[in-house]
Amino acid sequence: MSALPSSTTGDVVVLVGHPSTGSRTGAVGRTVADQLIDEPGARAHVVELGELGTGPLGEGGVAVQEAEELVRHADLLVVAAPVFKAGYPGILKLFLDRLEPTALESVVAVPVVLTASSAHGALADLQLRIVLQAVGALLPVPSFVLEEHHLDDLPQYVDAWRGRFGTAVNAVVRALNADQVYAR
Amino acid sequence: MSALPSSTTGDVVVLVGHPSTGSRTGAVGRTVADQLIDEPGARAHVVELGELGTGPLGEGGVAVQEAEELVRHADLLVVAAPVFKAGYPGILKLFLDRLEPTALESVVAVPVVLTASSAHGALADLQLRIVLQAVGALLPVPSFVLEEHHLDDLPQYVDAWRGRFGTAVNAVVRALNADQVYAR
Amino acid sequence: MSALPSSTTGDVVVLVGHPSTGSRTGAVGRTVADQLIDEPGARAHVVELGELGTGPLGEGGVAVQEAEELVRHADLLVVAAPVFKAGYPGILKLFLDRLEPTALESVVAVPVVLTASSAHGALADLQLRIVLQAVGALLPVPSFVLEEHHLDDLPQYVDAWRGRFGTAVNAVVRALNADQVYAR
Amino acid sequence: MSALPSSTTGDVVVLVGHPSTGSRTGAVGRTVADQLIDEPGARAHVVELGELGTGPLGEGGVAVQEAEELVRHADLLVVAAPVFKAGYPGILKLFLDRLEPTALESVVAVPVVLTASSAHGALADLQLRIVLQAVGALLPVPSFVLEEHHLDDLPQYVDAWRGRFGTAVNAVVRALNADQVYAR
Repeated sequence: MSALPSSTTGDVVVLVGHPSTGSRTGAVGRTVADQLIDEPGARAHVVELGELGTGPLGEGGVAVQEAEELVRHADLLVVAAPVFKAGYPGILKLFLDRLEPTALESVVAVPVVLTASSAHGALADLQLRIVLQAVGALLPVPSFVLEEHHLDDLPQYVDAWRGRFGTAVNAVVRALNADQVYAR
Repeated sequence: MSALPSSTTGDVVVLVGHPSTGSRTGAVGRTVADQLIDEPGARAHVVELGELGTGPLGEGGVAVQEAEELVRHADLLVVAAPVFKAGYPGILKLFLDRLEPTALESVVAVPVVLTASSAHGALADLQLRIVLQAVGALLPVPSFVLEEHHLDDLPQYVDAWRGRFGTAVNAVVRALNADQVYAR
Repeated sequence: MSALPSSTTGDVVVLVGHPSTGSRTGAVGRTVADQLIDEPGARAHVVELGELGTGPLGEGGVAVQEAEELVRHADLLVVAAPVFKAGYPGILKLFLDRLEPTALESVVAVPVVLTASSAHGALADLQLRIVLQAVGALLPVPSFVLEEHHLDDLPQYVDAWRGRFGTAVNAVVRALNADQVYAR
Repeated sequence: MSALPSSTTGDVVVLVGHPSTGSRTGAVGRTVADQLIDEPGARAHVVELGELGTGPLGEGGVAVQEAEELVRHADLLVVAAPVFKAGYPGILKLFLDRLEPTALESVVAVPVVLTASSAHGALADLQLRIVLQAVGALLPVPSFVLEEHHLDDLPQYVDAWRGRFGTAVNAVVRALNADQVYAR
């Protein structure tokens, strides 16, 4: 299906909005990203906010700026977040607060939410989408929201989600890239 | 730009969720739809819920069923709503309540919200998107939300919105159609 | 505890926002109301929107007006709704659309949501609260949201909710009434 | 009106969720708090998260713990936030992420939101209320949401808001305190 492959060839970045590195949330985000890429040898870049730390994220610095650049230039951005207090973590908002309202205008974003409670997962996802849209990102498909007790069956859940939404994600990624090519 | 025209060739339907026929809301919805079609001679189908009436929408009947069929088979569905009490009208929800959770799985939906208050417009849009997603529609781009006092400049607002989001809308419409072709 | 009884002595109305009469949703709403009243012999008035029908609710009429009057003059209004398509039913919004933005300014409202999915329950509750606030109601406490598979244990759930929030509900009901007395 | 004064006698805390100290947001929060207290000589405690800094808020420490204690033991908590990217600031969420789900169960919270855009103000307020409820706070009345261009008329806006909602806020504060007295 070369005319409409459900895979993405541009830069894919996983932004892990968890205060700790090595989280399950990050692992789920990478799995979703890998399924959307599916190109031999291609890999997603991973930005672990937990590695940067809340101090630098509040104040800036070289490492934070580099992370911002990666995120801004992503063709596809997977934003992975756990649910803390019926919302996504403060560390992720600290990062998004740094961006101007048009920062992600050429970025297609896919939120990935890992939650213990499905009610809180729905509410956190709603909030994350509102804020990603406010920094310009396009969110063409419903988020991948997973309840923790389904982690063992992650591959099947990602597969089902990708079967339903992968084509739309990649169509938008490709269309935005073509727009940029024409604009040059 | 034939490879990626920002126009849609499939069936476009405008669902006007206003209790009265001939509303400004409906006119705005048609304008957005026409800008997304932009094909010589092509026109959107219009479903005016105000013509059907709240009685039949609650109870069913032939006219309601025909409206449902049109909406289900749309490639692109523009859902136009005014804001009543910080939400979209009950008559529109009556119609959506009739649909099963997968009813609009092959439909790309673009909400169009006309509002007196921008705060209430934001809240009504949020609610409309939640419910459209719950009947399976894909909502690839932000809604077209217009404050009433900007009605005189409608063409410029629609133009700016289409310039920013038209390509993404049509890329998804085309990708879903191709999927269906392959599925045959 | 006569100084601070967690019961209400004013008019309590249960507004059942279900298209069918005799729904489980209505039964849950009445149970919550009865627990908040808890006064010998006192009973809540019940307004079943399913009895009125979507036609009259869209067009008006004597029965609809009487229902409106009951709701407007409630001291405590329990608004009971099932979840349809991640929202509350259209028939309930039809009714609320009829009210002006200050209609429920002297009314304390408690939403009661019965849901199959806890994610959809959270989203429907959010929407219902936005709209009730837009017609002036005070919503002093979190809604009573029940998942259907807990229906068998309804009394325990209502009891726990009332133990946590009953005092606050009744304090606000009493304070608003006192305000009105002083205003005479 | 000694039986039902619209003033609060317990501990009032203003939590300023702005990364900078001396913000207009903080000033608005203090004004709302002062209007709710209105007792000769009484003053609100102010917790400026900008003074603590995002590093300590992520990692903990004595100053952060003291701030937590103040907030937990407030009878009335005014949570003041500006709007960043259609949400409240990350620094505020960092603080709330530290609290357990029942941390604010004896706290009445009043969000105060200062915004440039009324649409984004409505969305940020919605998110802030969801999260405050998830740490157990009671939010008996609508938030005080002010658009920046109304700052010059702050006293009138606070007055109108307090006239409408002050009684309900204080009734709940008093009821929760009485509950605690009885529980001893």
